[in-house]
Amino acid sequence: MESLMNSAEEQQPSSPPGNSWSKQEEINKNETPKCVGGFVLVHAGAGYHSESKAKEYKHVCKRACQRAVDRLKAGALAVEAVAAALVELEDSPFTNAGMGSNLNLSGEIECDASIMDGKSLHYGAVGAISGIKNPVLVANRLLSEAQKGKLSAGRIPPCFLVGRGAHDWALGHGIPPCPSEKMATKFSLSAYKRNKRKMELAEKMDTGHKHAKKRRQSSETENGSGCLDTVGAVVVDSEGNVAAAVSSGGLAMKHPGRVGQAAHYGCGCWAENASNNPYSTAVSTSGCGEHLIRTMLARECSAALQSEDAHKALLEAMQNKFISSPFLAGEDRVLGGVIVLRCCRCVESPPSQNIQGILVEFLWSHTTESMCVGYMSAQDSKAKTHISRLPPGTVPGQCLAIEGGVCRLMSVAE
Amino acid sequence: MESLMNSAEEQQPSSPPGNSWSKQEEINKNETPKCVGGFVLVHAGAGYHSESKAKEYKHVCKRACQRAVDRLKAGALAVEAVAAALVELEDSPFTNAGMGSNLNLSGEIECDASIMDGKSLHYGAVGAISGIKNPVLVANRLLSEAQKGKLSAGRIPPCFLVGRGAHDWALGHGIPPCPSEKMATKFSLSAYKRNKRKMELAEKMDTGHKHAKKRRQSSETENGSGCLDTVGAVVVDSEGNVAAAVSSGGLAMKHPGRVGQAAHYGCGCWAENASNNPYSTAVSTSGCGEHLIRTMLARECSAALQSEDAHKALLEAMQNKFISSPFLAGEDRVLGGVIVLRCCRCVESPPSQNIQGILVEFLWSHTTESMCVGYMSAQDSKAKTHISRLPPGTVPGQCLAIEGGVCRLMSVAE
Repeated sequence: MESLMNSAEEQQPSSPPGNSWSKQEEINKNETPKCVGGFVLVHAGAGYHSESKAKEYKHVCKRACQRAVDRLKAGALAVEAVAAALVELEDSPFTNAGMGSNLNLSGEIECDASIMDGKSLHYGAVGAISGIKNPVLVANRLLSEAQKGKLSAGRIPPCFLVGRGAHDWALGHGIPPCPSEKMATKFSLSAYKRNKRKMELAEKMDTGHKHAKKRRQSSETENGSGCLDTVGAVVVDSEGNVAAAVSSGGLAMKHPGRVGQAAHYGCGCWAENASNNPYSTAVSTSGCGEHLIRTMLARECSAALQSEDAHKALLEAMQNKFISSPFLAGEDRVLGGVIVLRCCRCVESPPSQNIQGILVEFLWSHTTESMCVGYMSAQDSKAKTHISRLPPGTVPGQCLAIEGGVCRLMSVAE
Repeated sequence: MESLMNSAEEQQPSSPPGNSWSKQEEINKNETPKCVGGFVLVHAGAGYHSESKAKEYKHVCKRACQRAVDRLKAGALAVEAVAAALVELEDSPFTNAGMGSNLNLSGEIECDASIMDGKSLHYGAVGAISGIKNPVLVANRLLSEAQKGKLSAGRIPPCFLVGRGAHDWALGHGIPPCPSEKMATKFSLSAYKRNKRKMELAEKMDTGHKHAKKRRQSSETENGSGCLDTVGAVVVDSEGNVAAAVSSGGLAMKHPGRVGQAAHYGCGCWAENASNNPYSTAVSTSGCGEHLIRTMLARECSAALQSEDAHKALLEAMQNKFISSPFLAGEDRVLGGVIVLRCCRCVESPPSQNIQGILVEFLWSHTTESMCVGYMSAQDSKAKTHISRLPPGTVPGQCLAIEGGVCRLMSVAE
């Protein structure tokens, strides 16, 4: 596995990876070779990852990669593997998803999650769901139920459910409830108390100083300091199918019922197998939900990745479609991060008759202080993890870091 | 006002309208002339509009246009005018929005609505909200609150709220509650009872005939027969700002918590003032929510409308990005409709120094049996209304109708 470690926006994009490989123009569908296993890239959020907890974040990314690879080796499709990775990320008390999610203004946990299958282009999402340990499993079940076709009396199955209705639907489909008090952690409860005090203090100060700009000048919560640990993953399986998923507890102290990018179509995740396009792409985002929604960042990145140089395409998308997006013209700090993969079938050049495979390019980029990622192919014995940080002296929300690598999934045509 | 009345997909697109007008390449921003009033186009849903109720549908469209024009004449911005039109459409017991919305599986009303301001590019949406007479007003309030900047303690204001949280937020912002029983009508209650019987019968039959394709072969509810009367509007104001909005009670017999396209960013409505693009565009959609979500139809139409011939662009978008979309490959009938407007500043050619204006092109297109629209400029004494129908013999969900017109908003530079 090669690694392109380039940081900071002013750097030149790397040369296109995999020069010794060329895209195979025509693959006979009946002879599509099976590659070994597949590849997964996960993130434990774009935000701020303290050195003291770095080990924990890396651990959970490692476990999530392993879970996905285990499923891929067992022959699972990308969408099943990506869901398995997400369950591991949600189960960690250190991430802001599932267990240990941020508490909202009322001290409750309400989660968002979505999943997309690049093969069928189906999508499932839940928003502001409470009392479910793994929201991604509800999103995944919505996706698979929708693939079965219409319900009784010609009703179209839903792809997006929210709140109490989502919770009840989950229970009706065999997903067990989880008492909310079990999902809160010592850390999330103490963060809630701290934020509540800060809010009360800020509101008191605002009342004392009634000026026009009062909203803009108030102090910052945990969100502001960067605890935006939404999780996500992108996967390509042995057949070259891609899938993506994302899960989040949302912003700390959010209003009950607020739904963030993790449940927004085109904003939290995107996956699209190559059909008319040259590349299959999968994207998962993290960061400030409203920024990611209004820029529809997942879909924008996916579209950008159809141009030849993946690194350059992602760099430009993050700069032009996110940091400098006209949709966020009024924002002083645009906070978010993405993980992306794109892949295409390829043969060695000059082609050796029996060796084919999938060329996987994977990248991450963020405008937040840091982003924790992990990646692994089914050929690897263990996952690699990394906490990417903005270069020293750069300003979060205005600059970005971008890094990535290349992986070849080999196969021998029978 | 000219009218291009072209139906059916096989027809040739009309020649670009307004040949005697040319886009003004450079408008000095300090001298931007004020046009008279503005223009509004509304729809009372793409679905099936019986001849017996045609008069009612046309009436409500007429009233909605008048409401928007009244606001425009009073100097309101596009976003305020579009909200005013939506309130009128929601208040009608004949439309599936606000008052008289479809009932869900539990016999409750849960509404979706969203609004987008092309000037600020801000967006507000509510999903699965109960007990509020005018969901669009909550969406509009979310939009305007978000424009004020951050909340106390640096919290980012939400752009999308759902369920109970959305209801409570509305009440907290002075929007009065409305008892659910007041929002149901004799018609919606009897449709619910009829659908429930159909469902029970269909499920009984399915249990009796356990076959692989049981889900696909069941009979159809009101949805199938086309009662998809989501409402929406698009507006351009005297300054050339555009706005769009949409509101829906959702599919009849939907699962509680199901959120449709009317609350999905990029799917229910879209509005974008010209900045880097040559045209300002506004779009509002109607039809089967899941189809409109998965194709992100509002945003796709908006993007398509940047090409030169609006009629051709919309026709191609409806054919390639909707009916033949790879995202709906498994669907036999793709049901939906859109209203669009696009506009640009223009001068008479050869330019007469003091006469400038806005050239507004407006179109509607649908794959459903019919679509009811109304339109009016502030220069008109009353609105025009029309029920567009698929040509006889064509199949809903596989063919489309497309119609539209052109309007010039005149002004004299001072």
